[in-house]
Amino acid sequence: MAKAPVLTPRADDFPRWYQDLINKAELADNGPVRGTMVIRPYGYGLWERMQQEMDARIKETGTQNAYFPLLIPQSYLTKEADHVEGFAPELAVVTHGGGKELEEPAVVRPTSEMIINDYFSKWVQSYRDLPLLINQWANVVRWELRPRLFLRTTEFLWQEGHTAHATYEEARDFAAHIHRHVYADFMENVLAMDVVLGRKTAKERFAGAVNTLTLEGMMGDGKALQMGTSHELGQNFARAFHTQYLSKEGKQELVWQTSWGSTTRMIGALVMMHGDDNGLRVPPRLAQTQVVVLAIKGDEAVLAKVRETGDRLKAAGLRVQVDDRTDVPFGRRAVDWELKGVPVRVEVGPRDLENGTAMVARRIPGGKEPVALDALAALLPTALEEDQALLLRQARERRASRTSDVSTIEEAVEAAAGGGWARIPWATLGERGEAELAEHAASVRCLVAEDGSVPGADDAPGNVAVVARAY
Amino acid sequence: MAKAPVLTPRADDFPRWYQDLINKAELADNGPVRGTMVIRPYGYGLWERMQQEMDARIKETGTQNAYFPLLIPQSYLTKEADHVEGFAPELAVVTHGGGKELEEPAVVRPTSEMIINDYFSKWVQSYRDLPLLINQWANVVRWELRPRLFLRTTEFLWQEGHTAHATYEEARDFAAHIHRHVYADFMENVLAMDVVLGRKTAKERFAGAVNTLTLEGMMGDGKALQMGTSHELGQNFARAFHTQYLSKEGKQELVWQTSWGSTTRMIGALVMMHGDDNGLRVPPRLAQTQVVVLAIKGDEAVLAKVRETGDRLKAAGLRVQVDDRTDVPFGRRAVDWELKGVPVRVEVGPRDLENGTAMVARRIPGGKEPVALDALAALLPTALEEDQALLLRQARERRASRTSDVSTIEEAVEAAAGGGWARIPWATLGERGEAELAEHAASVRCLVAEDGSVPGADDAPGNVAVVARAY
Repeated sequence: MAKAPVLTPRADDFPRWYQDLINKAELADNGPVRGTMVIRPYGYGLWERMQQEMDARIKETGTQNAYFPLLIPQSYLTKEADHVEGFAPELAVVTHGGGKELEEPAVVRPTSEMIINDYFSKWVQSYRDLPLLINQWANVVRWELRPRLFLRTTEFLWQEGHTAHATYEEARDFAAHIHRHVYADFMENVLAMDVVLGRKTAKERFAGAVNTLTLEGMMGDGKALQMGTSHELGQNFARAFHTQYLSKEGKQELVWQTSWGSTTRMIGALVMMHGDDNGLRVPPRLAQTQVVVLAIKGDEAVLAKVRETGDRLKAAGLRVQVDDRTDVPFGRRAVDWELKGVPVRVEVGPRDLENGTAMVARRIPGGKEPVALDALAALLPTALEEDQALLLRQARERRASRTSDVSTIEEAVEAAAGGGWARIPWATLGERGEAELAEHAASVRCLVAEDGSVPGADDAPGNVAVVARAY
Repeated sequence: MAKAPVLTPRADDFPRWYQDLINKAELADNGPVRGTMVIRPYGYGLWERMQQEMDARIKETGTQNAYFPLLIPQSYLTKEADHVEGFAPELAVVTHGGGKELEEPAVVRPTSEMIINDYFSKWVQSYRDLPLLINQWANVVRWELRPRLFLRTTEFLWQEGHTAHATYEEARDFAAHIHRHVYADFMENVLAMDVVLGRKTAKERFAGAVNTLTLEGMMGDGKALQMGTSHELGQNFARAFHTQYLSKEGKQELVWQTSWGSTTRMIGALVMMHGDDNGLRVPPRLAQTQVVVLAIKGDEAVLAKVRETGDRLKAAGLRVQVDDRTDVPFGRRAVDWELKGVPVRVEVGPRDLENGTAMVARRIPGGKEPVALDALAALLPTALEEDQALLLRQARERRASRTSDVSTIEEAVEAAAGGGWARIPWATLGERGEAELAEHAASVRCLVAEDGSVPGADDAPGNVAVVARAY
C-alpha cells in the first residue's frame, strides 16, 4: 500500500497544498483576529534572511532606516484624495486610548506616505537636504476580507522606502534603481525567483502614484503574484504636505518623490514558486540552514561524528544545523526537513561510519547518494550553487512554457483561465480590454516593452500587456 | 563674548538639556498622536546596533525569533487577573475595521504574554517540546499621559522574550541567565553602562509575574532608570491558557514560564548616562560611526586624502564615515558631530596635508591633537577601547559618589530628593517604608543582597533596598 502523501498534491488542489505546506512546515498559523497571522520561528527565519539581504541592498543606495509612528491621526488620510479613496475601506481605527474616547480617532498605518511627508516637510529646507532617502521596516494593517496566510493578511510586515528629490528625473531614476538593483537583484540572485519587471497600467497603479513599477512572478499553478512595487509619486504628496525646498537659484520648489515596498508576501511567493509535493525548497543563498547533519541513531560514535561534521561544514562557511534529536524517529525527522526545504541533508548512521561516508540527500534536484565524509566540505558549496541555479532555471522554464503570445482579448482570457500568462499588444487590449479582463477574473499584471525592458510610458509604441489571474 | 551654549547646560535644567539634545542631535521628534515618536535616522542607527548586539546574545541562548499579531481580541486580556488590572488603563482599542464596527474590539498589544500563551498551549504537547524559547522584535502601544521621548512613549519598540520550561528551577535559571548574560553583558560591555542588578519588590513587580529581575542605571541627574527586566511568571499564564505538557512520566503538567523585555528607552538612557553639555557621547562598541573623517575645505588634495584615510580606517576594521560636505561650514559640521557624539573626529585641511598629519578630536575624554596620518590605523582602535572603558568608569564613579548608606527612611527620602541613591536595609524599610517613599516621589528600585548579588527572595536576610527617584 502506498503511503498517504504528506501534503495534498498540488495537482489535486493547489490552494489546499499551500495551506498544508504552511502548516506542516511550521511557517505560520492564523491569528485570533480574523486575517492576522503568527509567523512561526522557521517562517520568521526566512524573513530575517530576506531582511538582511534587502537591508544591505537598500543601504547600498544611500538610504537610511528610521521609524515613524504606527498611529496616524485620521485627518491625515484625507490630505491626498486618491490615496484616501484607495485606503479608506481597509483601515483599522483606534477610537479609545488610555480608557477614554479619543478626540480624534487614529488609524493604524496602512502605509506611511502621509505621516512621513508630514516630517519631510519639516526636515527639508534647502537643496542641500536632498535627496532625502528613508526606509522603515514595520508592520502595517489593512483590513482583509479574504485572508490567506502570507499572501493577504490583515497585518503584515514590510519595508517601505520614501524618498524626496530635487527633480523629476532624479526621482524617476531612483524608483527605477530600486526596482532593478534592490528588488530584482535580490529576488533573482537570492530568492532564485523568475520575475517580470514592468510598469502597471493606470488602473493598477498605487493610490496616489503617477507611475508604479512592479515585479511579477508566476506561481506553481500559473497564477501571477505581485512581488514588490516601486512608485513615482510625482509631486502629489509634496503638494498636499507643502514639502518644499529652496533651490540653488533661491526659489521655493516642491520635491519629487518615490515610495517602494516589499512584504512578508515574499514568503508565500517562495512557497508557491519553489515548493513541490514534498514541501518547500529553500534557495541555498536564502536558507538560514543550508545543510542539516542528522544522526540516524543515538550511538555515541555517530553523535560525535555528526557534531564534528557540523563543525567542519560551518568552518567551510556553510550555515549548518545539527539534528541529534535521536529520541524522535529518524524517518519523521527526514520528512520534516524535507517539508522545511533545507537544501542538503547529511545523514550519518553506524554503517556510514564504518565506510567513512554519509548519505547526502539533495532537496532541490532530489536524489540521495553516499559521499565520503572528508569530501563534504569541498563538494557542498558547489552543490548548493548548482541548486540555486536550478531553482531559477526551473522557474524560468515554467513561465516560458506557460506563456503564450495572443492577439485577441478572448485568447488572453482563455490563457489566464487555463493557468497561464498571455502576452497581448497593449494597443490591441487598451483600457476597454482591461475592463473586460476584470469580468473574467484576469488582469494586466504589467506592461513590458517589445524588447522586454520596462517601458517609459503606458502608451509607448510596441508595449505588451502581460495578462494573468493573480493572487 | 562667550558663545551661546549649543544645549541648555545640564546644571541649569536637566530635562530641558535632554530635550535639546534629542532634538539637536536629530535622534527623534514627537509624533502627531500624543505620546508617539518619530525615530530619526541617527537615533534609529543606535537602535539597529542595539538590536544586532542583543539579537546575537539572545540567539546564543537558543532562543528563536518569531512574530505574533499586533491586534489581540479584547477578551484575551481578562484571562490573567493581575495582568489585566496592570494594563487596562494603558490600552489602545480598535473598534472599527474595514469600514465596520467590529463584533469584538481588538486591543493593540501592550505586551504579548496573552497571545503568545495562546499559541504555546497549542505548540507544547510533550516534554520533548520544552524548553520553548521565543523572542520577538516588535512595537507595542501603552497610552502614556506624561510622555517623554524614548523614556515614556505611547508606542515604543522592544524585544520581548517568552519561554516555557518543564520545571520551576529551569525557568528561574533561564530568567536569571537572560538578566545576567544577555542584558547586563550587553549594557556593560557594549553600552558602557553602569547597572545595578537586583530584584523588584512585590509592589514593583510586573503584572502577572512571581519575580521580576531588573537592571537599574543612574542618570546624569542622579535619578534612576529601569533599563530592562526579566520575569519569572511561575504558572500564572500557563494556568490561564492551559499550557500543559505530557511529562516523561506520562503526567499532564503545567509549564513554568519567563518573559523579558528591553526597549528603545535604552536610547534615552544612553543620552542621560553618557551625555554632556556638548551633546551625546556614543560608546565606541555601539557607535554605527566610530570615526568621522572631515574635509575642512573643498580642496581636491584634501578631499582625496580624506577619502583615502576613510578607506584605510575601514580596512583596519573601524566603522567610518567620510564628511566631505564642504558646502556646509566646517565649524557647523564639527559642532554637529560633537552633538551626535561620534567618538573620534579626524579633521584634514590643507596645512595638515603638508605636515602629513590630521587633527584628531576625541569626544569622550575631550581634547584634540595632531596625529601622523600614517599612524591613525594603528592608534585609533586602542583609543576607542580606552574611550569605551572611560565611559563605564565615569558612570561607575558617579554612582559611587552619589550613593549613600542610610539607616532611616527619612535619610533615604532626603538622599533621593537630593539627586542621589540611598541603600537601606530592607528589614528596616519594609513594605510600610516603601509606601512612605511613594509619598515623596521615591521608590525602591531593587533589592540587592549584602554581597551585591541578586537575592533569591524578597526577605532574604541582609537584603538592601536601593532607593531613588526614577524616570
